[in-house]
Amino acid sequence: MDSRGEVRMVDISRKASTERRATASASVRMSEAAFDALDAASNKKGDVLAAVRLAGIGAAKKTADLIPLCHQVTLSSCQVEIAEPTREPEGGGYRVELRATTAAKDATGVEMEALTAVSVAALTLYDMLKAVDRGLTIERIQLLSKEGGQRGPYRHDPLTDTE
Amino acid sequence: MDSRGEVRMVDISRKASTERRATASASVRMSEAAFDALDAASNKKGDVLAAVRLAGIGAAKKTADLIPLCHQVTLSSCQVEIAEPTREPEGGGYRVELRATTAAKDATGVEMEALTAVSVAALTLYDMLKAVDRGLTIERIQLLSKEGGQRGPYRHDPLTDTE
Amino acid sequence: MDSRGEVRMVDISRKASTERRATASASVRMSEAAFDALDAASNKKGDVLAAVRLAGIGAAKKTADLIPLCHQVTLSSCQVEIAEPTREPEGGGYRVELRATTAAKDATGVEMEALTAVSVAALTLYDMLKAVDRGLTIERIQLLSKEGGQRGPYRHDPLTDTE
Amino acid sequence: MDSRGEVRMVDISRKASTERRATASASVRMSEAAFDALDAASNKKGDVLAAVRLAGIGAAKKTADLIPLCHQVTLSSCQVEIAEPTREPEGGGYRVELRATTAAKDATGVEMEALTAVSVAALTLYDMLKAVDRGLTIERIQLLSKEGGQRGPYRHDPLTDTE
Amino acid sequence: MDSRGEVRMVDISRKASTERRATASASVRMSEAAFDALDAASNKKGDVLAAVRLAGIGAAKKTADLIPLCHQVTLSSCQVEIAEPTREPEGGGYRVELRATTAAKDATGVEMEALTAVSVAALTLYDMLKAVDRGLTIERIQLLSKEGGQRGPYRHDPLTDTE
Amino acid sequence: MDSRGEVRMVDISRKASTERRATASASVRMSEAAFDALDAASNKKGDVLAAVRLAGIGAAKKTADLIPLCHQVTLSSCQVEIAEPTREPEGGGYRVELRATTAAKDATGVEMEALTAVSVAALTLYDMLKAVDRGLTIERIQLLSKEGGQRGPYRHDPLTDTE
Repeated sequence: MDSRGEVRMVDISRKASTERRATASASVRMSEAAFDALDAASNKKGDVLAAVRLAGIGAAKKTADLIPLCHQVTLSSCQVEIAEPTREPEGGGYRVELRATTAAKDATGVEMEALTAVSVAALTLYDMLKAVDRGLTIERIQLLSKEGGQRGPYRHDPLTDTE
Repeated sequence: MDSRGEVRMVDISRKASTERRATASASVRMSEAAFDALDAASNKKGDVLAAVRLAGIGAAKKTADLIPLCHQVTLSSCQVEIAEPTREPEGGGYRVELRATTAAKDATGVEMEALTAVSVAALTLYDMLKAVDRGLTIERIQLLSKEGGQRGPYRHDPLTDTE
Repeated sequence: MDSRGEVRMVDISRKASTERRATASASVRMSEAAFDALDAASNKKGDVLAAVRLAGIGAAKKTADLIPLCHQVTLSSCQVEIAEPTREPEGGGYRVELRATTAAKDATGVEMEALTAVSVAALTLYDMLKAVDRGLTIERIQLLSKEGGQRGPYRHDPLTDTE
Repeated sequence: MDSRGEVRMVDISRKASTERRATASASVRMSEAAFDALDAASNKKGDVLAAVRLAGIGAAKKTADLIPLCHQVTLSSCQVEIAEPTREPEGGGYRVELRATTAAKDATGVEMEALTAVSVAALTLYDMLKAVDRGLTIERIQLLSKEGGQRGPYRHDPLTDTE
Repeated sequence: MDSRGEVRMVDISRKASTERRATASASVRMSEAAFDALDAASNKKGDVLAAVRLAGIGAAKKTADLIPLCHQVTLSSCQVEIAEPTREPEGGGYRVELRATTAAKDATGVEMEALTAVSVAALTLYDMLKAVDRGLTIERIQLLSKEGGQRGPYRHDPLTDTE
Repeated sequence: MDSRGEVRMVDISRKASTERRATASASVRMSEAAFDALDAASNKKGDVLAAVRLAGIGAAKKTADLIPLCHQVTLSSCQVEIAEPTREPEGGGYRVELRATTAAKDATGVEMEALTAVSVAALTLYDMLKAVDRGLTIERIQLLSKEGGQRGPYRHDPLTDTE
């Protein structure tokens, strides 16, 4: 936004092109039935988790097409990781943590690419489990770290999480 | 997934085309500084909230391009609503609720379209406020309701939320 | 827009699906040098005019991706026609008329598809002639006719052109 | 086009990557009723003009996908401006001038990006006002200026306009 | 093409919407080293073959965006199958057969969707094995069968293969 | 793929950006009727072959959108060539050779872009001739040459073709 509140794509022509890197995470909460379905499918072919990873990578490449004012970025790498599901303490099913890391040599950061990757990866997990758990919830999508910009590195402090 | 665990686009050619409707929500947690920036921008031109709504609508139309096994759906309507920000009780900044409603006459549901719309709307809000709050967090993306499928209507029960 | 001035994709779920058809036109004004280049190229392979036609058809299929609140439409036909260039009376080079016709069986009209087709066709003509005429101008993009909607057919009345 | 008249994407691998900038304009002519609707909507939320600006920016990023032989360009900035509507002298409703400015550090110019942005912005204005003025006309899309290429800067001379 | 040889999207507005189905195949020839790499990767996570299947499905949904005169089709199903690799008789490495089946209720056939799916699936296999076998070759992409059109079913006769 | 067999976009941030070039070919086998139709159409407007060339160029620009783990590449040139059809010796109709050449200054190769271009060009030829020859077959898509990578130039050796 400029000083009048009008949307515009920020001018980055004066900014230096440097190595940028960002990591974002999403936490998915699912029922025991959804966990069982995921587990059974993974034991067969592994296509489910591959689809989640590929959807995240595909979305990272489409970020500028989804987020209206994002600059187009040519990623030098993108990785989506899916942690082992963990059982929730208080009878609340299972939780799966997803994490996406993106990098580029560019004049603008790649945090939107990491956040988009992890969000679409989580939506894909929903899509493949919705037949058994329509209540599956994506909790807490956030930026974990960021390197390479003018304002210095950023690292999320878990102590500031209020829940 | 089929019985071998292989990904495939489910065959819906035998399913009847009926009116489908779905609503999904996302909750965005932001710092006081982010809230102030959002408030100031909204008082000028309103472009920020328009961008959030338009990004959500645009993403809903791209759902089949983002979620690998989603069928292409021709939406008959899509609406993204942004609630007034509310102050969090325990010194935790502000919270904004986003809601997306999608509809189509189709043989498949439109919940992925609503979930995608609200997720990308929330990511767009992040994008426009990231300069003042890199810790802005998207919390609880979930399906609120769904109508028109074979398995009957669904309505999210807030009592099942474990947090 | 709804009554609050907020953008939304208009709900067309109650509208009947009928045969729709629309024709739009654009007029391109070019220098004598541009006309000569176009003429020479056309006499060789004809790729230039084919590119103009194909770009228009391709853009018609992408209309919902370009115009934020457009519904996705499955076109049943699209045609782009390019008239023979005519010499302008008052020493002003040449003029080429482009025309696009689109059709669909849908609950919403196809005029945006026709207008988008003819606009991108004209931009493509600019792209291929810009090396010889950067001043090439696209004049008067307008809807010529529209059939099949609830509000009855529309036909542009040339007498209302004020120029 | 090459010497045989065949389409090809011109080889720019020997051209230096320099700062490029371009500005294009479009002029939209609308009825008094359309102007009133635009004015009323703008006074409510401003979503209409935001949608016009965002559609233009989004289209600029998609230029290589629309114009068949355009090289892919990573824009360093894009801005769409909408002037205050002015009343036409001779009983002809109102006129709104749109302007798009694009920039990139690239081996190829960004004039197609500016022209595409302003064309799609104008089409979006049509889309949102078509319910009240199907005769709304986009008049005169042209390149206003261009900097940074091998052939030196270009500035449109309004005296060459023949109308 | 029309009678003048000009490209146009064929008018299908008078054709009835019926169940359409098509199957296409591609044959991939690879070195022993490529086969070993594929085998090793498949034994770990299976992501390689999942990526091949998903790329094919994703491409099927993008067919109208790739093939200039293709109508947009809303697929009711899409499946990509990968046969077990077989050793070639004459010291020529291994061969993998890919097959894609698409279906839709539409006024136009879905053979281009099946052919596009199987082609992009094969290209994805190349992409993942190119580090070990740049000579990997995609052979014989063809339509195996087609049902549901006006011209009656089609079934490829292997005896007409001349090789 | 990484060492666990999981898909990821390979990290190229340490690789130098150099001039890359690749050429790929496809061979299309068609019936005499298809050849006659192609010949007749080409003699009229030439739109058919222009469409084939343009589809190939358009697909080259979309490679990263089609092949899941491909990096986005900004092409500096792309050319699609179509050889004169030749009659097959053994009563087997006609054969047309297509060839695509791509180039970029990048840290990654452009062979997938060349292969994608030539594959989609061949699919487009199928699309335009399918009304007269549903058995038209794309035989042998392969990489002919590659320059500019770390592993040195590659040139396909026709003697290794086993058919």
